[in-house]
Amino acid sequence: MKQLIIIAHGSRRASSNDEIAELAAKVEQQLPCRYDAISFAFLEMADPNIETAIDLAINHGALEINLLPYFLSAGNHVVQDLPQAVKTAETQFPQVSFNLLSYVGQSNAMVNLICDIAK
Amino acid sequence: MKQLIIIAHGSRRASSNDEIAELAAKVEQQLPCRYDAISFAFLEMADPNIETAIDLAINHGALEINLLPYFLSAGNHVVQDLPQAVKTAETQFPQVSFNLLSYVGQSNAMVNLICDIAK
Repeated sequence: MKQLIIIAHGSRRASSNDEIAELAAKVEQQLPCRYDAISFAFLEMADPNIETAIDLAINHGALEINLLPYFLSAGNHVVQDLPQAVKTAETQFPQVSFNLLSYVGQSNAMVNLICDIAK
Repeated sequence: MKQLIIIAHGSRRASSNDEIAELAAKVEQQLPCRYDAISFAFLEMADPNIETAIDLAINHGALEINLLPYFLSAGNHVVQDLPQAVKTAETQFPQVSFNLLSYVGQSNAMVNLICDIAK
């Protein structure tokens, strides 16, 4: 079983965190994304945190977990915190394959997305 | 003269802030974006801040300034801080037309962008 976890920063504003849940639901509906399950987690200020989301995925049978950083640039969260969280999970769950995907801001499609907003 | 200012959060990590400069340069190269100039600013932890970027744009002759929040969700920065910064600029420069565009995470293209990374 293969699961995608979208990892966002998290906000004090509940509606902002709700956006992430909606986004994960939309991604799940997209055909090109071939996962048995798609969920989300927050680094700070909101639940579930990454550890909880990984626990849940594994309890539901995930043997392969891809983590997608919903971050725009490679700040400390992307460069330090997320790799550390994955390393911790790998140690705790050696039977599970973890894969930290590239962060959203690294996508070549971002320039077009910005141009669409700005034009 | 019409200018676009891409507003990012800002990071303690210089390379992360450099990504924004590179992004602004790429957006400037894209044909669909019809601006006389495209620049960037940071809300926190990096220069230029929004006030400085607006001053620079106006000193270079900008009469219409579009501000694009390079943020993924509508947290306090997007909902409170950026509208407040625009309101302040509007009071200070009544001869200039300011337009706060929608933030990046609000784009319908984001779901496809995520699917591209995750597939």
